[in-house]
Amino acid sequence: MSEIKTVLVTGGAGYIGSHTVVELIENGYEVVVVDNLSNSSYDSISRIEILTKHHVPFYHVDLCDRINLEPVFKTHKIDSVIHFAGLKAVGESTQIPLDYYHNNILGTLVLLELMKKYDVSKFVFSSSATVYGDATRFPDMIPIPEECPLGPTNPYGNTKFTIEKILNDLYQSATENWKFAILRYFNPIGAHPSGLIGEDPLGIPNNLLPYMAQVASGRREKLYVFGNDYDSRDGTPIRDYIHVVDLAKGHIAALRYLDSFETNKKTGICREWNLGSGKGSTVLEVYAAFCKACGEEIPYEITGRRAGDVLNLTAKPDRAKAELKWQTELNVDIACEDLQKWNTENPFGYQLNGVEMEFATPEKEFDARFITIGAGTKFAATIANMGATLVDLKVDGQSVVIGYDNEAGYANPEACYLGATVGRYANRIAHGKFNLNGQGYQLTINNDVNANHSSVSSFHTKRFLGPIVKNPSHGIYTAEYILMDKESDGELPGDFEVHVTYTLNVEEKTLDMEYQGKVNGKATPVNMTNHSYFNLNKVNNPSIEGTEIAVISDDSIDVDEHTIPTGKVIKRDIATIASGKFTTLGKEKPEYDYNFFVDATSAPKETDTRSSELKLITKAYHPESKIGLEVYSTEPSYQIYTGDWLTAGFAPREGFAVEPGRYVNAINVPEWKDCVSLNPGQTYGAKIMYKFSS
Amino acid sequence: MSEIKTVLVTGGAGYIGSHTVVELIENGYEVVVVDNLSNSSYDSISRIEILTKHHVPFYHVDLCDRINLEPVFKTHKIDSVIHFAGLKAVGESTQIPLDYYHNNILGTLVLLELMKKYDVSKFVFSSSATVYGDATRFPDMIPIPEECPLGPTNPYGNTKFTIEKILNDLYQSATENWKFAILRYFNPIGAHPSGLIGEDPLGIPNNLLPYMAQVASGRREKLYVFGNDYDSRDGTPIRDYIHVVDLAKGHIAALRYLDSFETNKKTGICREWNLGSGKGSTVLEVYAAFCKACGEEIPYEITGRRAGDVLNLTAKPDRAKAELKWQTELNVDIACEDLQKWNTENPFGYQLNGVEMEFATPEKEFDARFITIGAGTKFAATIANMGATLVDLKVDGQSVVIGYDNEAGYANPEACYLGATVGRYANRIAHGKFNLNGQGYQLTINNDVNANHSSVSSFHTKRFLGPIVKNPSHGIYTAEYILMDKESDGELPGDFEVHVTYTLNVEEKTLDMEYQGKVNGKATPVNMTNHSYFNLNKVNNPSIEGTEIAVISDDSIDVDEHTIPTGKVIKRDIATIASGKFTTLGKEKPEYDYNFFVDATSAPKETDTRSSELKLITKAYHPESKIGLEVYSTEPSYQIYTGDWLTAGFAPREGFAVEPGRYVNAINVPEWKDCVSLNPGQTYGAKIMYKFSS
Repeated sequence: MSEIKTVLVTGGAGYIGSHTVVELIENGYEVVVVDNLSNSSYDSISRIEILTKHHVPFYHVDLCDRINLEPVFKTHKIDSVIHFAGLKAVGESTQIPLDYYHNNILGTLVLLELMKKYDVSKFVFSSSATVYGDATRFPDMIPIPEECPLGPTNPYGNTKFTIEKILNDLYQSATENWKFAILRYFNPIGAHPSGLIGEDPLGIPNNLLPYMAQVASGRREKLYVFGNDYDSRDGTPIRDYIHVVDLAKGHIAALRYLDSFETNKKTGICREWNLGSGKGSTVLEVYAAFCKACGEEIPYEITGRRAGDVLNLTAKPDRAKAELKWQTELNVDIACEDLQKWNTENPFGYQLNGVEMEFATPEKEFDARFITIGAGTKFAATIANMGATLVDLKVDGQSVVIGYDNEAGYANPEACYLGATVGRYANRIAHGKFNLNGQGYQLTINNDVNANHSSVSSFHTKRFLGPIVKNPSHGIYTAEYILMDKESDGELPGDFEVHVTYTLNVEEKTLDMEYQGKVNGKATPVNMTNHSYFNLNKVNNPSIEGTEIAVISDDSIDVDEHTIPTGKVIKRDIATIASGKFTTLGKEKPEYDYNFFVDATSAPKETDTRSSELKLITKAYHPESKIGLEVYSTEPSYQIYTGDWLTAGFAPREGFAVEPGRYVNAINVPEWKDCVSLNPGQTYGAKIMYKFSS
Repeated sequence: MSEIKTVLVTGGAGYIGSHTVVELIENGYEVVVVDNLSNSSYDSISRIEILTKHHVPFYHVDLCDRINLEPVFKTHKIDSVIHFAGLKAVGESTQIPLDYYHNNILGTLVLLELMKKYDVSKFVFSSSATVYGDATRFPDMIPIPEECPLGPTNPYGNTKFTIEKILNDLYQSATENWKFAILRYFNPIGAHPSGLIGEDPLGIPNNLLPYMAQVASGRREKLYVFGNDYDSRDGTPIRDYIHVVDLAKGHIAALRYLDSFETNKKTGICREWNLGSGKGSTVLEVYAAFCKACGEEIPYEITGRRAGDVLNLTAKPDRAKAELKWQTELNVDIACEDLQKWNTENPFGYQLNGVEMEFATPEKEFDARFITIGAGTKFAATIANMGATLVDLKVDGQSVVIGYDNEAGYANPEACYLGATVGRYANRIAHGKFNLNGQGYQLTINNDVNANHSSVSSFHTKRFLGPIVKNPSHGIYTAEYILMDKESDGELPGDFEVHVTYTLNVEEKTLDMEYQGKVNGKATPVNMTNHSYFNLNKVNNPSIEGTEIAVISDDSIDVDEHTIPTGKVIKRDIATIASGKFTTLGKEKPEYDYNFFVDATSAPKETDTRSSELKLITKAYHPESKIGLEVYSTEPSYQIYTGDWLTAGFAPREGFAVEPGRYVNAINVPEWKDCVSLNPGQTYGAKIMYKFSS
């Protein structure tokens, strides 16, 4: 592809939509998602960001809302549209047909009107085999070809039928312009093999597989099979089940077909293709495949037929094969295995108790989220996408770190890296200079004569992708962010990809941070930390005064007046843990902003410390709040900073920081240089843990 | 019917809608009309008010605009809905299908949603035979029964088809509630036999008959016959033409059928009925019938087939006959005659040059209209529905009467009957007392010891129905209003129906007012006039000073200190026309508020003076503006009033009034009483004419 094309995906947070977004990105398209989230979750998009390592602009807009939809067309140069958005439950549609017609038809019309206005002509429409109705009423129409007369038997199918008519009429009205691909889906099942995205209907699932999955995970009591008196092998209806990844790929094929029309034939088109496997399975056959995948016989009950169901809807997929060069590659067994993986790894889908989301900057919506894990429990952490920043940490409901309540606070150039994931290179590089693999670099000076915390390319104002939030077991929450940090002109070299994973353990009151990075292109210095400012008595006093502190070692790196290491190891006046005593921080003294050795006798050289022991490096306690903190790390050094230069909304000594990491200026010190020099092929890794008592 | 039911008619200003509104009112229903006027004119409604002598509440709202539609349901207790509103041109629909789907489907959905919310369950839907498409593709489906498979061949037909589906699905979703009658119209033609309402498409007509009518009236050059190569008697397509009045009656039949379901079966229904004659006519046959009706061979040209047309669409109307007890009663010949009457009497339909309308009170919209006839010419009159009031009169673009620019001015209790049609009883009734047919009456006293200008039941703040505005020949405009004035408790007796017709002649600069009234129930005193205050020099001076005036006779009715006639005839100091001189009105003197005889020697007794000579009774002239006025009348007396008590926004002597009418207090004077005593069966009539020179 000569030019990167942007595809607008409506309903892109939904089941088929999310899988198609992944395939689009993997096929080199840019994607913009519009979804009203009426039956889906934004988490599918944040997970796709990590799965694809790609930002996905997202608009929480209902298609019927023209006023809020139009800016999407103004902001992005849309090349084509894949239109999934729509209500889709057959049974529900017979109960609330007006909603189905209103939402599905008006949404499509508004979308088409805006496409016309913004000169977007390629449109892939998510239709359904339901438009055929009971194809068995005609002779020789099973498997169903596209030529089969249409006759939907329920309001949902009628809305799809009507939209097909609209597309045909619109195409006829101006054949030179519109390029419409109508994809008639058979029964999509399964999930992405990554286990990260899958079907997660809000409320009671309407389709067979997600319902079975919820029975398997214990969310539902048993499967109801709607009728076993059909004229089939086992009495249950026959459907053509298609792996959702196959289905998603069908959209890429359709989009390319429309592209070829645009490029070669310079004419419009409006054409329908079945997307199905061509093989029918009964409900009980799929049930058996699913039981095999999950290794147990899940309970089921035969009940009455469901309104709108018909006996057999197996596709004749020949047209798609011949014209779109597309056919299914996966089968029901694989789909059931992928579903089971999704189900096992996400037993409650995207909908997790104890996880909350707020828009830190309302007008930025999902781009500026604060996610709280452990929300409503006795230990909760709030994390921002900007900087993968630890915004807040609450012990027994009491905040113990300082932070801002909106993104603007963090973006303020005067702000002091509050809670930030500091990187690529935490702490000072003397004079901003270093040599790596024979090449010299000069970073922008931002701190006295030095470059501190990566200077202008600091992570703390960069927007991380994701997160993937999980709740793998009771009281354990994880939130994984990534940053694809491009080499920036004249600053740190190489494209650095870093994963930041927070793990919260409610019972233990521990918050782990794990960093894992790789570089591409060139070697880069790496040294990461978390820069939280703690005030264990914040609930009573904005100052850290009265905090008692002790550290693993009082061996510190001597520095000159520009805080550049002199090469000497000196003792600082701070209590060691081994001494059994504590240094009490006063209102103004002592002032610390020093780098300490964990073990001054050893200088590890590895870039990935994660297999090292998590050592207790700092203990702190406040007698008034009775909250205690232990900081653990796999890192060889740590900075202690009593926040004496805090500004931008905070006064000096409103928090103290413990910053585990590599030695200050290590990139310029021969005996330390290896552990901060990351070459392509190497892995950077580190772990930090905050543990609270109360 | 035990209770009067209110029917909401959407698209009620349109062709079929307006005829159905008439039938509904004539069948005892109250009607509320909603129309966006996109292809119709409000004039159809104002004409219906006169035709039916009934107020029709009108809302200028698009059905897609839920916010403005909902108040209609809040304001009126809607019993049922007849839904005509929709775009309806087959050819246009193939060019702009999105507009057709958006408008027709969304409008219907919003309407149904509000019906549901306000618990309205009866709905008659204006569908079309177009839903059948080419019924000739099936064997034995001509004439077309309702069971014929549907297959519309154009976007317009698809929208009707989709709405039928919506209704069926909605009915299925809750069968106990909804009562839907789907009426599939064949080809409506003709017009109301009154000649007052008919088809008046904005722009180029899309249907055969209105197009022919415009050719006949010279608005279009010739008729285009779209194809004469069909397999019919004469090669032109066969349609089932149905007189619009028959069609309108079909809606009453359907509504009654739904009512019977509600009353007897207490169950829902969704059913389709063809409304057609069962007889097919070719285009050329209808052409021949129309030429016969208009007495000339209009030009036509055979041209190519029109997109979406099919050979034969003749109805099988048996189901409507059997179930709705409805069948056509009129034929194509009658339809053509009625169309020709409409066409002849309204060669430009409702769309008249020289007629303008404004909303005097924006929030009351059409209920508070000021209509200007002769707009843009050298003589123009503006008339309000409130009081059938002459709001303004412009000679060569200069206003010569005083008035308010909004309804609130006229409704002010202090206002002085400016421009009003004064009635039922103009001028004073001594002590508010009178006897009529042996019964004594006491009116509310509102003027010294007397009742003046009908006191509290005065017409001047009552809202007249209509008008019918016509432009019967070049430079002649008429505007007819009526008031159905009910007997009000303790005031004037009997129900009085009065027609007020203004006729404006631009060339002659004359404005005629004709009053014609009848009473029902009891006899009533009647004496009407127009109460314009003239200032012929208003453009230069707000005062009437300098106006020269002369009258037909200076014989005046003597009155006591309470302005009650003494029985004497006295001379007033005012110039007579015969004298060839003028009395000049000064800044403060002379003050007139006197009743004069036209001929003191004769006291006519008839209640209808319209066959009498229109006599010149007053001449006035202003030398500065050089504008002259002559007031003519068929009436036996006239009041001259120099406006010395003008108030409510006007100063004394800003205008003078000449009020032709019956003698002051005539109802209490034996020799004058007959001419103001209107008995049931008698007609009241009078004429006044204002003639200007400049």
